[in-house]
Amino acid sequence: MRFSLKPQDDTFYAFFNDAAENIRRGVGILAELGDDAPDFQKISERLVDVEHDNDQLTHRLFNKVNSTFVTPMDRTDMYHLAGKLDDILDHIEAAANLVYLYGLSDLPALPREMIEQITVLTQQAELLVEFMPKLKGLNASMQDFWVECNRLENDGDRAYRMLLVRLYSGEYPALTVMKLKEVGDELEAACDSFESVSNVVESVYVKES
Amino acid sequence: MRFSLKPQDDTFYAFFNDAAENIRRGVGILAELGDDAPDFQKISERLVDVEHDNDQLTHRLFNKVNSTFVTPMDRTDMYHLAGKLDDILDHIEAAANLVYLYGLSDLPALPREMIEQITVLTQQAELLVEFMPKLKGLNASMQDFWVECNRLENDGDRAYRMLLVRLYSGEYPALTVMKLKEVGDELEAACDSFESVSNVVESVYVKES
Amino acid sequence: MRFSLKPQDDTFYAFFNDAAENIRRGVGILAELGDDAPDFQKISERLVDVEHDNDQLTHRLFNKVNSTFVTPMDRTDMYHLAGKLDDILDHIEAAANLVYLYGLSDLPALPREMIEQITVLTQQAELLVEFMPKLKGLNASMQDFWVECNRLENDGDRAYRMLLVRLYSGEYPALTVMKLKEVGDELEAACDSFESVSNVVESVYVKES
Repeated sequence: MRFSLKPQDDTFYAFFNDAAENIRRGVGILAELGDDAPDFQKISERLVDVEHDNDQLTHRLFNKVNSTFVTPMDRTDMYHLAGKLDDILDHIEAAANLVYLYGLSDLPALPREMIEQITVLTQQAELLVEFMPKLKGLNASMQDFWVECNRLENDGDRAYRMLLVRLYSGEYPALTVMKLKEVGDELEAACDSFESVSNVVESVYVKES
Repeated sequence: MRFSLKPQDDTFYAFFNDAAENIRRGVGILAELGDDAPDFQKISERLVDVEHDNDQLTHRLFNKVNSTFVTPMDRTDMYHLAGKLDDILDHIEAAANLVYLYGLSDLPALPREMIEQITVLTQQAELLVEFMPKLKGLNASMQDFWVECNRLENDGDRAYRMLLVRLYSGEYPALTVMKLKEVGDELEAACDSFESVSNVVESVYVKES
Repeated sequence: MRFSLKPQDDTFYAFFNDAAENIRRGVGILAELGDDAPDFQKISERLVDVEHDNDQLTHRLFNKVNSTFVTPMDRTDMYHLAGKLDDILDHIEAAANLVYLYGLSDLPALPREMIEQITVLTQQAELLVEFMPKLKGLNASMQDFWVECNRLENDGDRAYRMLLVRLYSGEYPALTVMKLKEVGDELEAACDSFESVSNVVESVYVKES
């Protein structure tokens, strides 16, 4: 209840909720890579737009932070959290862009393990949208958030490692392996960025508690 | 002597000592990769156990931090330090697991430069076990710790660069190069994580002094 | 004007200006890779010297920070900023060293996109030298610094992605692709480090304002 007397705090929390929703939207578009005959170019272009929306959200938050005397969370923490949320969309946009740029659309399908990476990202985005509104109260239930984040990040690591095993199995020519690995690396980085978000939230909690 | 009146502080420092010991244990298992005819699967499985022990240590530390009113170091710093120690074992476990998963056991031997990377990690782990008990006093002798850490990290960088030169020499097929590089990258990341530990300790020292 | 009564502050700001100048010198040497028939070994050796000069600068700053009671910026921030400046030269030195070590001098020329990465680094270094002296006042004009940093980092990302497309086009043999990618990765990391510098400056500004 310590923040209840500062009504404008809601603007800050609303930003983080909007960013989470925007990430879910981005991951939803990325997941279309698993459809039959996806339009790789369109997916990439739509993700550039989503990333752009996020840049504008972040910009508005920073202006608000700079023009507000008392902020509900430490300025540096809000700054950090916004940066990590931004990283998620950067990596997702990069993954989709590389699929298109490298002409991986010529493959019969993306490797199953890569689609599994995207499934984990979808679950992480859902979790983020579910827990972000609870950031305001920062109560003990947040513990569930980072336990679950950690579990999903382990799932993501496993999918990534299985992708590498597949890529190095000799099924693809060397250059195709390199291209696919580049994409898998971006998806893995997006997965790690979700965990970084959880780590920032956890460190805020540790400080405030 | 500033902490001498808070007897429970020792629990915090004991955690960091235990984590250092655990890391030395992990690096010792990793070093068996340089033996004649090592059991790659067993090494990987034993390292999963060591990493799991570390996760439990970290979990106990975080609970302790959350339930203690006055902590001997800044909460965020303890949190950071535990995270960096955790990173070391993550990378070591990953390296051993990839050697096994990629079937690199089929090579007559791992490249000599990779064994040199592991030798550096062994020296870094010894250094950590030696200096961690001095964290409590945080006196000027810690300066030796980070000077030495820096020196070992340079040794590690050199071993890694020589590994890359060897891998790109044309001695191995392209896919084998990629697999070996993946392993070398994890060893290099473990080496860098040791230096991150040293950086956190140094920044604590800068703040406290 | 808040620091005007502490004359020795200038020593701290002088360090950051010297570090920026040193980085510009390093990037200037790196840019010689784009000349006709460059001496790859000499370029690499000269960059080792520049990096060494920077290590000494950093060492002097840390001693100063440790022996000064009131510092003009938060100790941890100065520590961070020096570390990020150091990262830039580490990556630049590594890039030039890998070009030499891998014998990439045998290629008719480095890929055009790689020279474009170096052009972006040159612009980033100029920007750093221009804005570093304004760190002392930390006034609103710093906003231009990070807006411009962000723009250049996007240019760098684009050059890097175009390099990857070229490398994976089938023009080079697989091992050459791997070597060139290693170099491009270091250049990209240098470009990202410039943005990290800007992020640290921005977070200092957010805290102080």
